[in-house]
Amino acid sequence: MKAAILGFGTVGRGTYEALKETDCGLEVKKVLDLYVPSGYEDLVTTDFNDILFDSEITVVAEAMGGLHPSYEFVTACLEKGKSVVSSNKYLICTYYRELTELAEKNGCVLRYTPAVGGGIPWLNNLSRIARLDEILSFRGIVNGTTNYILDAMQTRSFPFKDALRVAQELGYAESDPTSDLNGADARRKCAISANIAFDTIMDEDDIPTFGIENITDRDVEIFGRMGVTARLIAEAVMTPSGISASVEPVLFPPESLESSIHVNYNCITLFGRRTGQLSFIGQGAGKDPTGCSLANDMLDAAYDTRRDSHVFPESIPPTDKTTVRKRYYIRCSDELSALGFSSPEEGAYITERMSLTDIHSLYDNLKDKNAFIASIDKEVTA
Amino acid sequence: MKAAILGFGTVGRGTYEALKETDCGLEVKKVLDLYVPSGYEDLVTTDFNDILFDSEITVVAEAMGGLHPSYEFVTACLEKGKSVVSSNKYLICTYYRELTELAEKNGCVLRYTPAVGGGIPWLNNLSRIARLDEILSFRGIVNGTTNYILDAMQTRSFPFKDALRVAQELGYAESDPTSDLNGADARRKCAISANIAFDTIMDEDDIPTFGIENITDRDVEIFGRMGVTARLIAEAVMTPSGISASVEPVLFPPESLESSIHVNYNCITLFGRRTGQLSFIGQGAGKDPTGCSLANDMLDAAYDTRRDSHVFPESIPPTDKTTVRKRYYIRCSDELSALGFSSPEEGAYITERMSLTDIHSLYDNLKDKNAFIASIDKEVTA
Repeated sequence: MKAAILGFGTVGRGTYEALKETDCGLEVKKVLDLYVPSGYEDLVTTDFNDILFDSEITVVAEAMGGLHPSYEFVTACLEKGKSVVSSNKYLICTYYRELTELAEKNGCVLRYTPAVGGGIPWLNNLSRIARLDEILSFRGIVNGTTNYILDAMQTRSFPFKDALRVAQELGYAESDPTSDLNGADARRKCAISANIAFDTIMDEDDIPTFGIENITDRDVEIFGRMGVTARLIAEAVMTPSGISASVEPVLFPPESLESSIHVNYNCITLFGRRTGQLSFIGQGAGKDPTGCSLANDMLDAAYDTRRDSHVFPESIPPTDKTTVRKRYYIRCSDELSALGFSSPEEGAYITERMSLTDIHSLYDNLKDKNAFIASIDKEVTA
Repeated sequence: MKAAILGFGTVGRGTYEALKETDCGLEVKKVLDLYVPSGYEDLVTTDFNDILFDSEITVVAEAMGGLHPSYEFVTACLEKGKSVVSSNKYLICTYYRELTELAEKNGCVLRYTPAVGGGIPWLNNLSRIARLDEILSFRGIVNGTTNYILDAMQTRSFPFKDALRVAQELGYAESDPTSDLNGADARRKCAISANIAFDTIMDEDDIPTFGIENITDRDVEIFGRMGVTARLIAEAVMTPSGISASVEPVLFPPESLESSIHVNYNCITLFGRRTGQLSFIGQGAGKDPTGCSLANDMLDAAYDTRRDSHVFPESIPPTDKTTVRKRYYIRCSDELSALGFSSPEEGAYITERMSLTDIHSLYDNLKDKNAFIASIDKEVTA
């Protein structure tokens, strides 16, 4: 069978190499890129129509990133009946319903395992298990940059700025790391995962999010004395009232699985009614892990003749920001002692159990715009 | 589509319920069991021919356990062109090549994800990734009973006998726990995993194995002072000379992933050239996790029209018991001080790096038949 890859950047090259170097029966006939590298003149084209109108090409991998023209190219391929796989979380999150329905209508496969967790086969396993199991919740470390920073600060005593700089030097963090640090990247992955777990259509902007941009060395010192480890966690829980989704730093006890996730690894856990707790840990980014995962999606798409029929339910569950209640750590210069919180150290508070609505309301009303907030895992007893 | 289940015990019932309670398109038409429970007269038959000669039934799940008559039933189904899934590690390990070739010859699917790791989608993901990646090694906690015992001894100070008794009361350990404690169960799972990872045909009897039957409370006290955590590990590494496979207790540092695996959980990690390190953690046994996994294999088999073609290589890699060298902890009443090992406590020794051949030879020559041996993870620096 013949395939094409849109984009010959890091992921596109990783995908190409994984397919080329194995005898997998799927041949990459064309690659689309604006730049044709020397020696690749027969493979790389700058004209999308060379792929779209080649009827031999039945599977197309989108590895360009961004919304446009990836959206236009992907919809054109699906309308031609070509199956599409993508590593592009932005595209999949933004056009989830439209692309799913377009694939369905045209009898093609749409897969995007690397869009969350990079090289970790999370979404395809979540989807496979959700066929027969009720997913009760999931939670995960889905951003390697912030995990690298938090781990370096806590286990190697790096100041925040040094940890960020090293993450950038190692290629984990973008030159503009804003969407990693403020949780927006994790929030998007949370929305995509919730779509699969709960058969819903999640608006990423409707997920209450705290990032780690305000964490300080003093916060880390306090966590050391509390005996906890901070991780940035994307979580969603199906409650009787809807879906409680959030992204926030969480403080875990040392014996927890999340505390054992070091450097830039990702770790995502589902809780299924039948399956119980099931965790996946691996490289959440990188050329070869992500490329190999996208290439595996291509093989699945090429040989999957089932064409999973998916019809969205008539109504989707509402978001629920009040049912789940957690204790929070707040470090700020605002005087909160009147609120009755405990205060293990000056300027640091541990709240009673609060809802997402209430903690975000409290945060929004703080004068200190450098406040740092983290929820406290229920296994932390102190 | 119509399916059948052989065996209506714990796993068979879990499988039946997972399929019955979801709208998955696969109907269980018949279940084979020696006993027909009241209310199940239309479903359960005692006559295997009711399944074998029912041409509507295209997928058969074997959940009987044991070698006979499961072997006869499975081969008969494959010869009739019915796809087979199985949770039976004994059957799959013993007849791996024959059953694989029989499925191939008859154009049917053979799947057995729950045979290793119960509810963890380990084997199917290992197989999927191995299509495009070179598996360098794997290692895992694949026996929940021994993990429960080791964890209870180390984190809750249970004496060995109490830990075993509680594991039995909780249903984790069989009334005869011999094959859990001596590593034979883990060894079988190691062989099956190695078959998939390295496209080989592993003889389980050729895997050097130490169990935990000789662990004592004093060993656990010493591990506490060493700052390490013991886990029973099945491991296989592809070396330039062949496959180095072993089952043995391993001492891990506290920050390791394996140390964070508590109670009866399993944790299996693959190391792929492209994928990097990828770990799966979940319930390695139990009615619902294992049943749901077997039911998912049934769905895959029912809808997988690819019929993965598998031809065994002409020659399989040899076993290699000399290349991989590790330090070992030995606790015994034999006097070993002449061997030049360090001795952190009386009767306890830490060896230099030794091969599997050498440590097993040393063990076999000990007078103390209650000696306990564990390898020391390379991350342990002490």
